[in-house]
Amino acid sequence: MTVGQAAGILKDMLNQGTDLDRAFHALADPSRRLIVERLARGPASVSELAQPLAMSLSAVMQHLQVLEACSLVASEKAGRVRTCRIEPETLRQVEHWVTRQRTTWERRLDRLGDGMLSEHSD
Amino acid sequence: MTVGQAAGILKDMLNQGTDLDRAFHALADPSRRLIVERLARGPASVSELAQPLAMSLSAVMQHLQVLEACSLVASEKAGRVRTCRIEPETLRQVEHWVTRQRTTWERRLDRLGDGMLSEHSD
Repeated sequence: MTVGQAAGILKDMLNQGTDLDRAFHALADPSRRLIVERLARGPASVSELAQPLAMSLSAVMQHLQVLEACSLVASEKAGRVRTCRIEPETLRQVEHWVTRQRTTWERRLDRLGDGMLSEHSD
Repeated sequence: MTVGQAAGILKDMLNQGTDLDRAFHALADPSRRLIVERLARGPASVSELAQPLAMSLSAVMQHLQVLEACSLVASEKAGRVRTCRIEPETLRQVEHWVTRQRTTWERRLDRLGDGMLSEHSD
């Protein structure tokens, strides 16, 4: 591996860390989770997001900025309407990290259980 | 449903919201994610956590306080040694929320795909 390749891998790892930092931070807010829940059911305009969530347009816009900054959401403007949609890749990265910890923990418990069983059968 | 039952359900929903807020906030910090990754592989004392992560004991203690406040981690002191372990239930709640959004989004894409296929076969 060249120094350049190693630096590239390290940069990717650090970027992924930063992406996860931002994504977990974005999802720590209940209003932003409501926006993600709504967009998981399909794209929506800013006013379509604001109305059922009883938020002002400016509050929704602020939350969308945070969600767009960590690539959980993307939006496009056509004429006067901005349409927002889920960007699934970041959601998958968050899910992947959490699932990995949960399965690592459960596999360890399984191994402990197997160890106890084999001790009993010895 | 009685008013008391409805109030109980609402309280549970609000508490779950608060739990998720805290858990996502806790996991937004890369050092705290490293601690969770380490504990997923098995319980560890505070100094066993600090050493490989190149953190001071007091930094680890501060991160542990945040992780314990949202029930991602629990710890017990025996003599002078505090042993920390994963509390899986909160990790499962975080995973469940993220997985639900991802699957809702994918199912919608599947339905869109089915709709396009049936239009073509008409």
